[in-house]
Amino acid sequence: MTSYDYDLFVIGGGSGGVRSGRVAASLGKKVAIAEEFRYGGTCVIRGCVPKKLYVYASAFSTDFKDAEGFGWTVGETSFDWHKLVAAKDAEITRLEGLYQKGLANAGADIFHTRAELVGPNSVKLVSTGRIVTAERIVIAVGGRPAPHTALPGHELTMTSNEVFDLPELPKSILIAGGGYIAVEFANILHGLGVETTLIYRGGQILSRFDKDMREGLQTAMTEKGIRILCEDIIETISDAEGGGRLVTTLKGEILTVDQVMLALGRVPNTEGLGLEAAGVKTDQQGAIIVDAFSRTSAPGVYALGDVTNRVQLTPVAIHEAMCFIETEYKGNPTSPDHDLIATAVFSQPELGTVGLTEDEAARTLAEVEIYRTAFRPMRATLSGRSEKTIMKLVVDAQTRKVVGAHILGPSAGEMAQLLGVSLKAGVTKDDFDRTMAVHPTAAEELVTMYAPSYRLRNGERV
Amino acid sequence: MTSYDYDLFVIGGGSGGVRSGRVAASLGKKVAIAEEFRYGGTCVIRGCVPKKLYVYASAFSTDFKDAEGFGWTVGETSFDWHKLVAAKDAEITRLEGLYQKGLANAGADIFHTRAELVGPNSVKLVSTGRIVTAERIVIAVGGRPAPHTALPGHELTMTSNEVFDLPELPKSILIAGGGYIAVEFANILHGLGVETTLIYRGGQILSRFDKDMREGLQTAMTEKGIRILCEDIIETISDAEGGGRLVTTLKGEILTVDQVMLALGRVPNTEGLGLEAAGVKTDQQGAIIVDAFSRTSAPGVYALGDVTNRVQLTPVAIHEAMCFIETEYKGNPTSPDHDLIATAVFSQPELGTVGLTEDEAARTLAEVEIYRTAFRPMRATLSGRSEKTIMKLVVDAQTRKVVGAHILGPSAGEMAQLLGVSLKAGVTKDDFDRTMAVHPTAAEELVTMYAPSYRLRNGERV
Repeated sequence: MTSYDYDLFVIGGGSGGVRSGRVAASLGKKVAIAEEFRYGGTCVIRGCVPKKLYVYASAFSTDFKDAEGFGWTVGETSFDWHKLVAAKDAEITRLEGLYQKGLANAGADIFHTRAELVGPNSVKLVSTGRIVTAERIVIAVGGRPAPHTALPGHELTMTSNEVFDLPELPKSILIAGGGYIAVEFANILHGLGVETTLIYRGGQILSRFDKDMREGLQTAMTEKGIRILCEDIIETISDAEGGGRLVTTLKGEILTVDQVMLALGRVPNTEGLGLEAAGVKTDQQGAIIVDAFSRTSAPGVYALGDVTNRVQLTPVAIHEAMCFIETEYKGNPTSPDHDLIATAVFSQPELGTVGLTEDEAARTLAEVEIYRTAFRPMRATLSGRSEKTIMKLVVDAQTRKVVGAHILGPSAGEMAQLLGVSLKAGVTKDDFDRTMAVHPTAAEELVTMYAPSYRLRNGERV
Repeated sequence: MTSYDYDLFVIGGGSGGVRSGRVAASLGKKVAIAEEFRYGGTCVIRGCVPKKLYVYASAFSTDFKDAEGFGWTVGETSFDWHKLVAAKDAEITRLEGLYQKGLANAGADIFHTRAELVGPNSVKLVSTGRIVTAERIVIAVGGRPAPHTALPGHELTMTSNEVFDLPELPKSILIAGGGYIAVEFANILHGLGVETTLIYRGGQILSRFDKDMREGLQTAMTEKGIRILCEDIIETISDAEGGGRLVTTLKGEILTVDQVMLALGRVPNTEGLGLEAAGVKTDQQGAIIVDAFSRTSAPGVYALGDVTNRVQLTPVAIHEAMCFIETEYKGNPTSPDHDLIATAVFSQPELGTVGLTEDEAARTLAEVEIYRTAFRPMRATLSGRSEKTIMKLVVDAQTRKVVGAHILGPSAGEMAQLLGVSLKAGVTKDDFDRTMAVHPTAAEELVTMYAPSYRLRNGERV
């Protein structure tokens, strides 16, 4: 039997890597993990966590305005970007420490270096050039914002990697993209007082979400003052006279903004990783190809999380890591379950969703019932805010199962999480109907929509 | 066949009365409804709705403080009670109008008068003395705060009926009671800047809730500055020199406060209603006794909602009304389902709950698993607030069913609503475990507690 330096070597200290390394180590395996940037990965360092902290920060400006309708007079308020950045830094540094502490307590060796594959069971620690061997290697190096080098002036732009730590809060920004990252940052920056424009080549933001949610959110964003340019793209970017960027678009818009942010999708971090040397195959997007057990084409090499481009979400990477552990170290072959994943967009208003959109249900189910409601949230009655909460249930009329649930409004993410439990358990619309309302909540609308708003048969509204 | 003036006469224009009257009228029945105060009932006029508006109002003071941790500087703020009362009045007047409009559109006759039973199928409209007859009579007159006439100085106190419309916001208040109304108002008034003391004869607030939630909430309230006197009661109240009330307690505390509010439970509004004349029996508390179909002891007379003291909640009254309609007017005998009702206490932090508490499960189930977590909500990491979110699942280990779910923290009410769907559908802990997390949310903790915190066997922790 060959002897290796480690039972497991993990490349990448993000959600999937840390979880697999920590748990394997806690099971008594000899584990090493290498991370070239900061432990915690995208989620902790420049993704979910700082993003949500900035969402909280940006929402206060709304609170200050809303308070007036409830009898409050709020004195002059001001916002200090540097204080927010510093507070965020302290928090993510704390979390980064917890990640490392968890690994260390479990007994893993922690390397602060880039690591590359140099052969089937071999990894090079780039900082020292040392080669180590491992029986199993997990690649969990994640992804990064897609560059757009064909765009004239792309070197004048930034991405979500940089936006958290801008030296100054811009006065104005143009964000390119219509996905959740573009949308979340448009809302964050607008809430912090930045004049915000979003440009997106599609007809409406968030193309993969339910159409009512997309429309509701786009309307809400527009109404509060975010400018949205649809069916348009940036053509050129150059330095503007007097500072900032001069942007021209395909449709002929000319904008001068302080900053341009590209949020045009994400790509896997697979370049220069030695994948060929190890016999690890990738797809056309550079994502590592894996089977149902996260095994790559190279024996003993596994890949987890965003680098595999299955579902790019933190909990999915963690789930994949736990399945890897079950399969490889507990003798319990377990495939990741990617079905019915609830997600949230932390826009303002928030969007929460699980299961089929109306259009997906129309395409795949013979008989569909749509239950839909739109109402002014109670808080908005006194604040005077025009926002609407929109809720929608998509029901398979033949099985009575609720196959999709979509919410736009406060706490939509929390609701999506718990709707996820119900949908995963296969509950029916009758179960919703039998549930007593909790009053006054927004979610009670989900259990009091007794009659369908309309029906679809063979994809057609009837 | 006897001929009646009406098919249905409803006494009481609250949630249960209006719903039964409106739906019966919309089915073509000849309906009349009488209300002596304001349409909308306790919920709309002096309960759920204004309460939640005041919760929103009172929460802003926390937001103003929390904002600092996120980089904001908030100028001097002030609160104008009269503006809040006026805004609340406008909103409940709007809702009151909607209730009446719904009735009118359905074709019901709307009377603004007290109505009393004068015989089996006869009702007197007190304002005119007119007697009308009806084939069926629904009594839905609700309840009111329990008086405490034995308390020396009780005439110097107020209840939740008056607190919404106090001419001035008191500087200090003593609230007697440990139920949800006492607790909600303690949090509201504290948030609006009132020096707040709560006095309760029990050992801990909210006696019927899960012990971890009770303890967590009481701790949170105490930490933010609400004084809670447990195992004590008010002994006397008198006018204080220089204004306000002088209160002595059983344990010997002496307090001077601007106002004293009693929240010592609620009693049914059955006095002087002519129940004896109609042959309608009541229990020792004065609540109308009904069978499983909301039928009273008098043929043709039904009772719904708080006056029956089954479960005093708006959605329950509405549900009972809908069951009455199904049973009496649709030939579909339907009993109200009072099992697994999710509820919320709109304290700050909020409390949401459905199903069995740990203690109830310990008493009734042989094998119980408790899953419990307490954590600092993400927003609190930057605001510096010490609050803890507490979540708990109670699982029947033999069936794997989740039989209780309890949450203390932001959006707990919204979560309780959707946990209600899951519990009503009988989902198992395995369904929770199979659900992917939504990150970063608080609710994700509910689907990531894979191992029990502890177990109970035959009521004992093992």
